[in-house]
Amino acid sequence: MRIAELSRASGVPPATIKYYVREGLLPSGVRTHRNQVEYSEDHVYRLRLIRALLDIGGLSVDAASELLAVLDTGKLTVRESVGEVLYALGGRRSPVGEHEQGAATADVEALLTRRGWQVDEQSPARRTLIDVCAALRLLGHADVVAAMDDYATASETIAATDIGLVRSEPSLERMTETAIVGTLLGDTLLSALRRLAQEHLSQQLLPED
Amino acid sequence: MRIAELSRASGVPPATIKYYVREGLLPSGVRTHRNQVEYSEDHVYRLRLIRALLDIGGLSVDAASELLAVLDTGKLTVRESVGEVLYALGGRRSPVGEHEQGAATADVEALLTRRGWQVDEQSPARRTLIDVCAALRLLGHADVVAAMDDYATASETIAATDIGLVRSEPSLERMTETAIVGTLLGDTLLSALRRLAQEHLSQQLLPED
Repeated sequence: MRIAELSRASGVPPATIKYYVREGLLPSGVRTHRNQVEYSEDHVYRLRLIRALLDIGGLSVDAASELLAVLDTGKLTVRESVGEVLYALGGRRSPVGEHEQGAATADVEALLTRRGWQVDEQSPARRTLIDVCAALRLLGHADVVAAMDDYATASETIAATDIGLVRSEPSLERMTETAIVGTLLGDTLLSALRRLAQEHLSQQLLPED
Repeated sequence: MRIAELSRASGVPPATIKYYVREGLLPSGVRTHRNQVEYSEDHVYRLRLIRALLDIGGLSVDAASELLAVLDTGKLTVRESVGEVLYALGGRRSPVGEHEQGAATADVEALLTRRGWQVDEQSPARRTLIDVCAALRLLGHADVVAAMDDYATASETIAATDIGLVRSEPSLERMTETAIVGTLLGDTLLSALRRLAQEHLSQQLLPED
């Protein structure tokens, strides 16, 4: 199909499609004539994936580009590929005071030991978790940090469902794509479910006045 | 304290402090002389809260301003105040095809009925959840939508912990602040825990090749 048709099928304007090609998010079409480029159904699907990562996942174009590059290598093992995706999706850094950083590192070490979770020293999610704990401590919310075991138990159930969904896919490419979509859109899905459950429970559990 | 000391205590540069005052995120200090403004410990705390919302929560200045306004009204009931915060934190919209939107609306209605969750028709999280389900369907991931009950069960456990933390606070202001911090930083905390649990479980459950 031509770019006008690709635009109609995906809902993405032609100028934006060209921008995604320039930024390396979308493979070029096949040039059939001097001024004619053909796109396929794969392009429609990829555009939907790009829009989901940007609009619902809230990723920057650079971050989406990095993730899609993992998807496109196709040379890694399943575990490597999924691992790369998780690491690319892992981090949100924020510098806080040294004192809180030390206490927060101890919080996270202790939690990992209690859960028996084997994770790399360099895991970005580990750094993110330390940063969040440090910020919570700085804000006087050690109570939230203390509730982390409850959150960790729930997260383990969630992760088991996640990995189950990845495992049920037929190919490495599809597994990697499921890890990207399931993790990123899953974050938005989980936060929406959490809000809805909070709304329901707050009517039952919070005082009216 | 003077602005230079406030800057040292909070780690936020003076120009940024002035910007937050102009944008309504931070109350002004008290003018004691023609060119001297005094700040208090409350300003240090508020600056930490602002930075946590922006840096770890990933909020825009406008969104943080809206949330802090709820915190500052102090005229609502606990339930209203927490409800306003949850709604302000609720939405990430993304337009998708009409067909998927219809199927996704049915997915979410059915889930809410199965769980017995009472939530408002206009709840932003409800709209977000429909949008995520529509995007997942569009990407061929009805399997993730079908796994939503597992995610909802885990989310209910998480929300019960959340509401318990809010309830244990001594004042309305502190409850509202806990709802903001716990929900927003909690999202980052939960996504980090999910990544760590995924990393641990993927080593056990995903094939090495």
